Amino acid sequence: MITNKLNKASLKQTVQREEILKYILAGKIHPTADMIYKNIVKIIPHISRTTVYNNLKALEKANIIKAITITGEDETRYDAVVEPHHHFVCEKCGKIYDIDICCNNFLKKNIEGHSINSVYAYFKGICKECTKDV
Amino acid sequence: MITNKLNKASLKQTVQREEILKYILAGKIHPTADMIYKNIVKIIPHISRTTVYNNLKALEKANIIKAITITGEDETRYDAVVEPHHHFVCEKCGKIYDIDICCNNFLKKNIEGHSINSVYAYFKGICKECTKDV
Repeated sequence: MITNKLNKASLKQTVQREEILKYILAGKIHPTADMIYKNIVKIIPHISRTTVYNNLKALEKANIIKAITITGEDETRYDAVVEPHHHFVCEKCGKIYDIDICCNNFLKKNIEGHSINSVYAYFKGICKECTKDV
Repeated sequence: MITNKLNKASLKQTVQREEILKYILAGKIHPTADMIYKNIVKIIPHISRTTVYNNLKALEKANIIKAITITGEDETRYDAVVEPHHHFVCEKCGKIYDIDICCNNFLKKNIEGHSINSVYAYFKGICKECTKDV
């Protein structure tokens, strides 16, 4: 699947790029660049933070991953699911969940005269796991 | 209106706070903290950036203004409309528009077991003004 994604986007398949993408795809944890670096450096010890950041930028530009910025958080998160979908951010544990709800606005190509290229939508609150602890 | 908003939130009415809120309310331009500081310092020359930032935090905490973070932008924007609504961000001129569309998801209090406190939604693309120039 990773080879397909890179080939489709005409991106050169490097070990670094494969490992980064594998990590983002595997856990569905929407990691930060720092989390990705700390994981990849265990597999490729000589990799630099700059290489990780540059690969993230290339993967984002090729629409293989999507950057998510959450209000109140300093660091950008990365998502391997690039199709429009909602997120839920827990204000207690910080976990980001994918949310599968229907939204007609996701399909709109023009709103009030503006041409739409992409859509970002997320909810904040207390997740189902943290709710149990209250 | 400004006095009402501050009183309702039991926030002390200071000249700084009034001017900051007046500026955010007036233009609907969703300014950054830096834009707010540069405008307020013309009216209150001795004001510091820290005072502006602290007042923005207090106004946000009191739910009089809302912080908006846009993926790909480094700086937080501020909005005086705290009721749930969509935004449109122009990738060409950088302007942020308020969008008046219906969204049933805005009303949800619980999704997939998660308790919802707030919702953030925005579109990116080319605005109606920049589309004219293409």
